[in-house]
Amino acid sequence: MTKIQLWSGVIMRRIAKQANIRDLILDGVDVLLARFGYRKMTMEDLARQVGIGKGTIYLHFPGKEELALAHIDRIVERLLQRLREISAGPVSPQKRIRAMLVTRVLFRFDSVAHYSQNLNDLLAAVREELLVRRRGHFENEAQEFAKVLEAGRAEGVFACPDSRSTAQLLIWSTNSMLPFNLTAAELGNRDELEERVSLLAGLLLQGLLRRPQDKVKPKKKDKTKK
Amino acid sequence: MTKIQLWSGVIMRRIAKQANIRDLILDGVDVLLARFGYRKMTMEDLARQVGIGKGTIYLHFPGKEELALAHIDRIVERLLQRLREISAGPVSPQKRIRAMLVTRVLFRFDSVAHYSQNLNDLLAAVREELLVRRRGHFENEAQEFAKVLEAGRAEGVFACPDSRSTAQLLIWSTNSMLPFNLTAAELGNRDELEERVSLLAGLLLQGLLRRPQDKVKPKKKDKTKK
Repeated sequence: MTKIQLWSGVIMRRIAKQANIRDLILDGVDVLLARFGYRKMTMEDLARQVGIGKGTIYLHFPGKEELALAHIDRIVERLLQRLREISAGPVSPQKRIRAMLVTRVLFRFDSVAHYSQNLNDLLAAVREELLVRRRGHFENEAQEFAKVLEAGRAEGVFACPDSRSTAQLLIWSTNSMLPFNLTAAELGNRDELEERVSLLAGLLLQGLLRRPQDKVKPKKKDKTKK
Repeated sequence: MTKIQLWSGVIMRRIAKQANIRDLILDGVDVLLARFGYRKMTMEDLARQVGIGKGTIYLHFPGKEELALAHIDRIVERLLQRLREISAGPVSPQKRIRAMLVTRVLFRFDSVAHYSQNLNDLLAAVREELLVRRRGHFENEAQEFAKVLEAGRAEGVFACPDSRSTAQLLIWSTNSMLPFNLTAAELGNRDELEERVSLLAGLLLQGLLRRPQDKVKPKKKDKTKK
């Protein structure tokens, strides 16, 4: 083994270790959000929970707000991974779109379910910065939706002239069901949320489907039928 | 004029005066939110702005949070009035639904546009209670949408089996475009928002329209068309 290979091995392991520590710290945040909530969580608690020094945490995260935001980013990264799996899956474009819509809502719900009672102070504290980050999250999700819309259009199933902007519509239309927009009571009721998003997915898919009359002049209102 | 008529006149005038004072106070809130923002607005500023004593404000509103919430409630009441006018209007159900969707987004936007830069601290401060109140707001809006959906179904234009729950879908799907969910940058861009909600309204209307194949077995995927 050359010296360069040896050194690059050392560097790779160091990077892996750093990534591990970041993840361990965020795991600790997750536990403490459930136990104390955001307002009462301190850096001391977190250092004790993870079993490292407070200084090490500050090496990775400048403060509590960044910890909370990184924690939310990580949830969305994991969700994106899941969406990529579905969008590359073998079922029909309709089924993929439906599964992705339901997943983007329920995955987030499930990720915060163990501290749903403590979620409000977290979301109020980081609200402004989170709104900005969410634009990036939504952008990444829209990319995955656009791929499937494109596939559905190629198959002649969907009538969406612009898959990019249609993907954004799908994102916007389900955004109000994300934890950010739910009351404490709604955050306790997974079944209700699942029903909501499934119904909405159904309506949106109806809107997406190609009709026989598409690309001809729109059908006149038919007053003879009751 | 009898004594009873005289007294009821006095009482009516007093009630009207009380309602006026409430409205005047909320007008003052609107001005001060633009000038100072929620955090820096004080009851002293408000009393001076309205030209009444601080005590009179406390007679009507227990505190700053209630003032902010009543201010938001008033915006939604005015919006509801507008939605009722549209829903009772003479145009087709499709056009009414479209106008109502666009209005529920842009009316709120326009109501806060003059203090959009100061909106975030207000919404963060009352976030939890506002989430709860919004359920009531949305419920009232859904009622107006349901009327038009019902009319459209009777005319054979819409295929919505349950106008009540479909109305809620329309509400949920546009909720992410309300000021509560917009970044400061987005709150500055009315044209973009109008385009968004118009596109979404188009997709939702496509989903609502009755199709020739409705109530027969769903069309098979057609792989021969490109």
